[in-house]
Amino acid sequence: MIEGLKEKIRNIPNFPQKGILFKDITTLLSDRKAYNKAIDILKDRYIDMHIDLVVCIEARGFVIGGALAYGLNSGVTLIRKPGKLPYTTYKDSYELEYGRNEIEIHTDAIKPGQRVLIVDDLLATGGTVGAAIELVKRLDGEIVELAFLIELTFLNGRERLKDYNIYSLIQFGKEE
Amino acid sequence: MIEGLKEKIRNIPNFPQKGILFKDITTLLSDRKAYNKAIDILKDRYIDMHIDLVVCIEARGFVIGGALAYGLNSGVTLIRKPGKLPYTTYKDSYELEYGRNEIEIHTDAIKPGQRVLIVDDLLATGGTVGAAIELVKRLDGEIVELAFLIELTFLNGRERLKDYNIYSLIQFGKEE
Repeated sequence: MIEGLKEKIRNIPNFPQKGILFKDITTLLSDRKAYNKAIDILKDRYIDMHIDLVVCIEARGFVIGGALAYGLNSGVTLIRKPGKLPYTTYKDSYELEYGRNEIEIHTDAIKPGQRVLIVDDLLATGGTVGAAIELVKRLDGEIVELAFLIELTFLNGRERLKDYNIYSLIQFGKEE
Repeated sequence: MIEGLKEKIRNIPNFPQKGILFKDITTLLSDRKAYNKAIDILKDRYIDMHIDLVVCIEARGFVIGGALAYGLNSGVTLIRKPGKLPYTTYKDSYELEYGRNEIEIHTDAIKPGQRVLIVDDLLATGGTVGAAIELVKRLDGEIVELAFLIELTFLNGRERLKDYNIYSLIQFGKEE
């Protein structure tokens, strides 16, 4: 466990709905030391892995992904909610408890063979990042790893994503 | 004019609605050299201005703001659309062509007197950033400057925001 990060995450009960204990990362982001330490650790991990593009998922993933891409001297590609990207897109969908969500990527967002790191703030069940993987594969990007600020280990996202390398900075169990 | 940035912006006609020539920044973001140059220039401008917090506006502003905060070794605070921030918030609204939009900030997102740089991808009429200024002032943040990747000079955002220092990396006139 990395010191000084986990305690900067704030628990918000019943957000966005009753029964959910939401992990609020804004308290970590606004803490100068914690934020820069988190990005430094990710940077140190990936600096020698020749990452061409950091692919990050709307919206909190944009903060971490944008910063990490800058640390790695790489480019950054956005995966967004439907209707937000202005050029032609590919879509993929993933299941929610009720219904499905869609995410999109520009059809020219990745050049075939580019080495890609997929970044989001949170790994829960892995639904969103699973769809992001499909979009990156469709553009023939080479997925080096999936990186997260937080992992909710009890939701078993790793199992669903077992074909990929996964890294998270902070892990939470069910009762935390 | 900074070389090598403006030509990386893609024009998308009629997005998000007919008659709008949308400036697509994703082509700049995914270009390793252009993206890192843009953030480097912002970093060089602000590195000696003692910025405590980069306040960035959802969603594209998160990429630039997250990266710049990392470059400046500062924290980052998120201004988001309604219902997205999990803790208690202050809201402010701004006019659209039809109706109004709201944005929010956490009530504890800025400590009184913290030196704040407000960052967004685009300065158009200045409506969004005007609301962001009100939120930062409500938390007694000290606004050092407003920074943008792109400025649409013909929409006169600077006039509306004339009480503040404004910096943009790329400027577009009406026919560009």
